Amino acid sequence: MLPKISQRISQDPSAMDELLALSNNEQVISFAAGYPAKELFPKEQLEKAFVHRSHNSDLNLYQYASVDGYAPLRKKIAELVSRTGVSDIDENNLFLTQGAQQGISLLADLFLDIGDGVVVEGPSYIGALQAFESRKPTFYEMQMQSDGPDLDQLEKIVSSHPVKLVYTIPTFQNPTGVCMSVAKRKRIVKLAQKYNFLIIEDDPYRDLRYRGQDLPTIKSFDQTGNVVLLGSFSKILSPALRVGWMVAEPQFLQLVNGLRSATDFQPSNVVLQMIDQYLEENDLEEHINQIREVYGQRNEVMQSTLAQYLPQDCSFSKPDGGFFIWVTLPQNMSAKSLLTDNSPVTFIESSQLYETSHQANQMRLNFTGVSEQQIKTGCKLLAKQIKNIRLALTA
Amino acid sequence: MLPKISQRISQDPSAMDELLALSNNEQVISFAAGYPAKELFPKEQLEKAFVHRSHNSDLNLYQYASVDGYAPLRKKIAELVSRTGVSDIDENNLFLTQGAQQGISLLADLFLDIGDGVVVEGPSYIGALQAFESRKPTFYEMQMQSDGPDLDQLEKIVSSHPVKLVYTIPTFQNPTGVCMSVAKRKRIVKLAQKYNFLIIEDDPYRDLRYRGQDLPTIKSFDQTGNVVLLGSFSKILSPALRVGWMVAEPQFLQLVNGLRSATDFQPSNVVLQMIDQYLEENDLEEHINQIREVYGQRNEVMQSTLAQYLPQDCSFSKPDGGFFIWVTLPQNMSAKSLLTDNSPVTFIESSQLYETSHQANQMRLNFTGVSEQQIKTGCKLLAKQIKNIRLALTA
Repeated sequence: MLPKISQRISQDPSAMDELLALSNNEQVISFAAGYPAKELFPKEQLEKAFVHRSHNSDLNLYQYASVDGYAPLRKKIAELVSRTGVSDIDENNLFLTQGAQQGISLLADLFLDIGDGVVVEGPSYIGALQAFESRKPTFYEMQMQSDGPDLDQLEKIVSSHPVKLVYTIPTFQNPTGVCMSVAKRKRIVKLAQKYNFLIIEDDPYRDLRYRGQDLPTIKSFDQTGNVVLLGSFSKILSPALRVGWMVAEPQFLQLVNGLRSATDFQPSNVVLQMIDQYLEENDLEEHINQIREVYGQRNEVMQSTLAQYLPQDCSFSKPDGGFFIWVTLPQNMSAKSLLTDNSPVTFIESSQLYETSHQANQMRLNFTGVSEQQIKTGCKLLAKQIKNIRLALTA
Repeated sequence: MLPKISQRISQDPSAMDELLALSNNEQVISFAAGYPAKELFPKEQLEKAFVHRSHNSDLNLYQYASVDGYAPLRKKIAELVSRTGVSDIDENNLFLTQGAQQGISLLADLFLDIGDGVVVEGPSYIGALQAFESRKPTFYEMQMQSDGPDLDQLEKIVSSHPVKLVYTIPTFQNPTGVCMSVAKRKRIVKLAQKYNFLIIEDDPYRDLRYRGQDLPTIKSFDQTGNVVLLGSFSKILSPALRVGWMVAEPQFLQLVNGLRSATDFQPSNVVLQMIDQYLEENDLEEHINQIREVYGQRNEVMQSTLAQYLPQDCSFSKPDGGFFIWVTLPQNMSAKSLLTDNSPVTFIESSQLYETSHQANQMRLNFTGVSEQQIKTGCKLLAKQIKNIRLALTA
């Protein structure tokens, strides 16, 4: 017999894994996963960068390196982050992670004991919810509004409960596509200072804006170290690199460093140097502009197809960037009921994206990992399915 | 103000990080870290493998992939593991990790709540100790003997205390270099079955044998799933790849999969495919034979230099493989006292390698990451330092 696993850990299969499985069935059109368009990966440039760097480096490229990651790459990322309004930042404010997911997980692990308070957006990113869940905290939810999470609700929560972490995706939120207003970005920092919580600002979609003006990061308004900013190359270069970053004060990052060295010791220096060389040889901004053009078009196509075919009592978000459109079905309709074994279209249903309220009548549609033709066909099929279910409900 | 960090987490700087710092000062001869010899990394072959695979793969190489890692590589590793006596093993028994370190950390996280029992060897690998420490368990120590850990002591512990995990490095143990006898390998499995604990068999040095016969893994005697075997490419290919593996039953690996997807989501598919291609194009065994020859020679040189220069009341281990020689100083001498700011030689002193007994008169010397000349010079200097301190002690 084996010993009991931790009381913190659920034995349920991983929802993220199920999500990937949904997306790997080639018989169906998948709006489920948050995949970038593979045809946009700069494969040749990455190959070239790797060969150039490996060829021109000494053998230390393949040796153990530092826990926080290759310093010249940290410096380059610091420069990118400074453009979001964060001042006085250099490589010592940067810590490289195995995707932004590891950043979330390390912060959860660093702060949370069983029962500690965590506030998340309702709905939110499932990978973050799972990272928090495995620490068994007390969850609170702030509902998403059109200009970001409801901060009146947040203030009520943090003024009456001990809360350590507040997790937000302020730019093109996953799953709703909403951007937090500048006013709210400023206010949430003030709340963090007043109520002594840490804001985890998860910002992987920031560069994928198809309309409108860039907004400053929440971190740019932080004078007290109450905000940790997370970013990633997964959505703008390639998710198979598994490289993200954490921005915080150097002293704070020392704590993270200690924890990470016991977790997986350090990142892959080979991959970090490949990215560093890629950034030296290529114009990342130009590459992102190409992505923006394709994704912006797909966003338009999905919005116009939904507008044309969705029943009147459904609504959907009209994001200016990011990966997702958020569809709201009539109150009495469960999105899960559309996900049968022979559904021609898959998506993420909302109940698992709400940590406490489990609202069931919404769905997340990804538009970046599918072609315009798939978007058109898939949205039509989805609208038809919705109509059929409505008929069954009203019959 | 920031919220309090978890009561599980120590604010001390990471000992592993300090260890790396000790090894990066080029002014001193470092026997401290467990570095492989960089001149043996198969750089050109790895480069070639990466380019070939990237060039001949579709763009999915750069896309999100599976949480447990690229299946063909898992299959190849299963074949390697089957040679250690583990029968009925295939890719479904393999889970790829970010170095073996992540395997230890995932198992610690999966099982341990605060206060849960963990048994470790005294002394043991500092990275494992830290992974367990961050879960704040109750530690027990089994002392190392010449044929492996004291299993009478282990039986006393597990028969009188609830213990979930027993961590062992049975082959060329870090830091002592000891191999666990076959009799003890069989007995520890029986104890695990009787007292319902999980054995973590950490086996990264197995292939680095310079003398004598290979021993079967502990896992090869396991019929009940009470043993999880960990391995790694870090010591036989390159630690900058950060690829290790976990061998267990498929149902058990599902639990690990769920936890890992919330931790860092998945390994880097780019790196896994590079290794997979390397293994297709090259004879790993032949590469390992080259490493064995060099390291075997360094091991001899260190042993003979220590035999010649160490004072009579010091002793040292004579390992048949692995990375380390274990030196025991007279009982009243602290190894730490030899590590001053201007020491010409660094090593790992023993007190931090014992989780409970903190024995202070031993030191771990690495012989793989240094040249024969450095070994000779360093060991002479070290012997001189020891003699000086003895003089001071007796004066």
